[in-house]
Amino acid sequence: MEIGIVGLGKMGFNLALNLLDHKHEVAAFDVAKESVQNIEKEGAKGAYSIEELVSKLPERKVVWVMVPAGEITEGVITELESLLGKDDIIIDGGNANYKESLARSARLAEKGIHFLDVGTSGGTDGARNGACTMVGGNKDAFSYVEEIFKDICVEKGYLYTGESGSGHFLKMVHNGIEYGMMQAMAEGFDVLEKSPYDYDYKEVARVWNNGSVIRSWLMELIENAFSKDPKLEGLKGIMQSSGEGKWTVETALDYQVATPVIALSLMMRYRSLEDDTFSGKVVAALRNEFGGHSVVNK
Amino acid sequence: MEIGIVGLGKMGFNLALNLLDHKHEVAAFDVAKESVQNIEKEGAKGAYSIEELVSKLPERKVVWVMVPAGEITEGVITELESLLGKDDIIIDGGNANYKESLARSARLAEKGIHFLDVGTSGGTDGARNGACTMVGGNKDAFSYVEEIFKDICVEKGYLYTGESGSGHFLKMVHNGIEYGMMQAMAEGFDVLEKSPYDYDYKEVARVWNNGSVIRSWLMELIENAFSKDPKLEGLKGIMQSSGEGKWTVETALDYQVATPVIALSLMMRYRSLEDDTFSGKVVAALRNEFGGHSVVNK
Amino acid sequence: MEIGIVGLGKMGFNLALNLLDHKHEVAAFDVAKESVQNIEKEGAKGAYSIEELVSKLPERKVVWVMVPAGEITEGVITELESLLGKDDIIIDGGNANYKESLARSARLAEKGIHFLDVGTSGGTDGARNGACTMVGGNKDAFSYVEEIFKDICVEKGYLYTGESGSGHFLKMVHNGIEYGMMQAMAEGFDVLEKSPYDYDYKEVARVWNNGSVIRSWLMELIENAFSKDPKLEGLKGIMQSSGEGKWTVETALDYQVATPVIALSLMMRYRSLEDDTFSGKVVAALRNEFGGHSVVNK
Amino acid sequence: MEIGIVGLGKMGFNLALNLLDHKHEVAAFDVAKESVQNIEKEGAKGAYSIEELVSKLPERKVVWVMVPAGEITEGVITELESLLGKDDIIIDGGNANYKESLARSARLAEKGIHFLDVGTSGGTDGARNGACTMVGGNKDAFSYVEEIFKDICVEKGYLYTGESGSGHFLKMVHNGIEYGMMQAMAEGFDVLEKSPYDYDYKEVARVWNNGSVIRSWLMELIENAFSKDPKLEGLKGIMQSSGEGKWTVETALDYQVATPVIALSLMMRYRSLEDDTFSGKVVAALRNEFGGHSVVNK
Repeated sequence: MEIGIVGLGKMGFNLALNLLDHKHEVAAFDVAKESVQNIEKEGAKGAYSIEELVSKLPERKVVWVMVPAGEITEGVITELESLLGKDDIIIDGGNANYKESLARSARLAEKGIHFLDVGTSGGTDGARNGACTMVGGNKDAFSYVEEIFKDICVEKGYLYTGESGSGHFLKMVHNGIEYGMMQAMAEGFDVLEKSPYDYDYKEVARVWNNGSVIRSWLMELIENAFSKDPKLEGLKGIMQSSGEGKWTVETALDYQVATPVIALSLMMRYRSLEDDTFSGKVVAALRNEFGGHSVVNK
Repeated sequence: MEIGIVGLGKMGFNLALNLLDHKHEVAAFDVAKESVQNIEKEGAKGAYSIEELVSKLPERKVVWVMVPAGEITEGVITELESLLGKDDIIIDGGNANYKESLARSARLAEKGIHFLDVGTSGGTDGARNGACTMVGGNKDAFSYVEEIFKDICVEKGYLYTGESGSGHFLKMVHNGIEYGMMQAMAEGFDVLEKSPYDYDYKEVARVWNNGSVIRSWLMELIENAFSKDPKLEGLKGIMQSSGEGKWTVETALDYQVATPVIALSLMMRYRSLEDDTFSGKVVAALRNEFGGHSVVNK
Repeated sequence: MEIGIVGLGKMGFNLALNLLDHKHEVAAFDVAKESVQNIEKEGAKGAYSIEELVSKLPERKVVWVMVPAGEITEGVITELESLLGKDDIIIDGGNANYKESLARSARLAEKGIHFLDVGTSGGTDGARNGACTMVGGNKDAFSYVEEIFKDICVEKGYLYTGESGSGHFLKMVHNGIEYGMMQAMAEGFDVLEKSPYDYDYKEVARVWNNGSVIRSWLMELIENAFSKDPKLEGLKGIMQSSGEGKWTVETALDYQVATPVIALSLMMRYRSLEDDTFSGKVVAALRNEFGGHSVVNK
Repeated sequence: MEIGIVGLGKMGFNLALNLLDHKHEVAAFDVAKESVQNIEKEGAKGAYSIEELVSKLPERKVVWVMVPAGEITEGVITELESLLGKDDIIIDGGNANYKESLARSARLAEKGIHFLDVGTSGGTDGARNGACTMVGGNKDAFSYVEEIFKDICVEKGYLYTGESGSGHFLKMVHNGIEYGMMQAMAEGFDVLEKSPYDYDYKEVARVWNNGSVIRSWLMELIENAFSKDPKLEGLKGIMQSSGEGKWTVETALDYQVATPVIALSLMMRYRSLEDDTFSGKVVAALRNEFGGHSVVNK
């Protein structure tokens, strides 16, 4: 199959290589010319504008968009909307909010363009060697491109999830779970670190990855991380977040579902971004007022 | 009534003054000679050892212990145990763990000594001008000394709570609630601080103290604090804790009661003691592993 | 001053009485004719449509809207927009989301109508006898009606909070704090209830209201509640919520502020709405899978 | 090697089979005669008392204790203490609190008996076919029996963790992490369940297990569970807990480590044990007091 790719960042570039491995023809565009030149060397057709990209695709055009969620995705899809026509297919493999995907799907449907919202998991390595994808949108459009998902994913690693939005929704919840799992593991290691015992964390992660209840890919990544830096001394404990964890909590609030673990995982990330907190100052001030406990800012 | 006081710290000294105001005779001991001399100037009898203190009290001796919980309380009570006799009364007005108070009560009962475990709230100002006390222990012993509580507390500000341990238990829970209330207020002001609006926090606390649902003594203290330092710039947001919040959570765990708000109030205090966290490093390492998000320690 | 009131529910009716007490002239409308007739008996001018209400007001019309937030508020304000003119003033004393208030203020400003977003606290009793209000919006408009706030609030119980939205924003945060305080108190009593001690909760609340650190209006309300029903046996522990707690958490997420206590207070309310949870089933299923722990649904 | 086993429950019986598979000689005792007879049929020597069991072991006796933590473990070890001698080895493979293991190790050391505290993970299936073990205690004793761990565990699935207590401590933290991971997954599925989409949860778990970031053994177990009962309608969402999650939180409190996710995982389990809560009643009563919101118990 011939596939257009918009976006050759870490995810998009690896995805293009993955598609090429599986004998698909790839036409690819990125705002960075160098990325386009690099993918050309790997056997793809380069394009230096979205218009050029679209022109290089055969009828019933299929374009995979792999750019940052939000304004950039919106810009790319708006441009594609003007260039594509009936029955063409846009695949958004990025981390868009499912509500935006729902709106895009409805808007594009007015022109007869199909929109598949695809949650992609597995990191850059997955994009390169076998991803996990969750695909929402029109079922016929999905069937038309199913072979792509079959090829780029690990075996059994893709799922048609139903109507528009359901792919990105499922990816959003996946990330919420991921936040909770990561924080659970992190808290555990923090307790070990404060304990009187002198554990070798790489060995701990290793043994937990072999036969224990908590064996998991994330624990394998922890094992990797500790094998490079036994006490993580090279890292600051600043936990950035993209949008999905937040959206999961917001969605849970909308549905009145109690999700304390996912919510707290997110909030501890926010807390990690601050050196000092205003809430802490208020509590310190209160303690000072009623008990004469004083904590002076130096 | 004639009362012996052991401990002339911020709480004990104010309590002694409060008792003197109400025409009680006070004999007082502290390890700091200067404190003893100071209270003598206010009209109390000074004592330079616990033995001397006890010797200055008339029959059916009543001793109020107002020293830090834990080892110091244990030392004082052990010494008093050897000096007091049948029907004498020890009042522990400190913040002991109720389990220790239960054990002390049982131990002292073997010698016929009564032990009242008294939770004291209201801060140093309350100790001076009108406290709030919760009194557990033998009811007859309580009745014998009830006039003390009537005098040193604000009107309606004391309660006989029942059997041994129930006074300190109630004070423990009071402090757990206090932690939650403080954290709730602090979080609210933190949201205000991050908002685009330019609130005058002293005025906010002032209006909330006049007619709102959240009017409270703690909010009055916040008003005081902001009136001195409008943005709390002089304070670090380090939130120390004594034992009661922790004991409340431990007790809740023992009873299998979900107390998320009290637990999180406590954990955010612990979090505030750290500049960086090992849990944060683990999450940062994980994000680095699967997504190439790097946060280097500088 | 002559004031039009739209909405004679529990809050609006009491507010009208409060205004009448202070010698203001009140014209009032409600969709329930009976409420209009009732307020007429108290000395107000009744109106049976918003149009009639507006027609009864003198120039520089002032209308206080006291109806449920959301669609009903939107409908009332849209109608008022068509009936009012330059320099007239709409006061929204309900619990609107501050973002909606911001939008309304901007929309109304195009016609020269001023919009004051007023957070009102203190419950129905406050509305009747002395409320607490936080007023955002145009400062001149506020000055024109300031006497109203002076009269209907307790002394020092109103605050001009700044530009549009700041009144409802502050009320939103107030309610977030309220959620946290209520949950903290509730958790404390839950620990008492599970304890081996036999506390009289009305007495506990009473003593805590006299001199303790946690004395507060909410604790007074708890004292009232326990005086009527010592173990709250007549109540189900179902904790409904209106929007403000949720908006506070959503706002905190937008600003990346950690507000675990307010978030958990809200989530425990959501949890209380469910008899059984799907999350609980998933955990039960997992325990069943790895350990053969079985919990069958009967 | 010849190994004595005390306890032939789900874990102990499978462990015995596992050892027999690997050509170890097993002598086994359980209070249930039938279990002893069953294991005899599998090739083990049966014993009908601990004394008999010990008598059947050759010099440098090795006894693996696999009974419920707490009093039963204490009873078994006390009896073994009286029957074993210098350099004999007791392995406690149960879920004892590490503090108790520390105390037992010290006590047994006085008689020259070595005590290995072994955390065992992987469920009953792991015990049968390849467990994960974490071994604390005397290093020479560990070396003497290392071949056992090599045989009964999956490859790389055992770790000598250091001094006494470190094995059970690590297992405790492992379980704390497990609680957090399970709750994170459960919350995610709860959000899916409340969503407007109609996901097939078995398929969701399946796709997540193939290439996603959250692939894990626990997610595989969820896949199994949903394949048997697609909506878990046969289960009540009651989440029991054994001690380790609670001990992890208590330990975190002792070390002043913030572990909100593990703590909340535990508290949501406690919450699931109750049909109604006293905390909920208190909040409902408060809402009733200030706003006239009434929730009557029927």
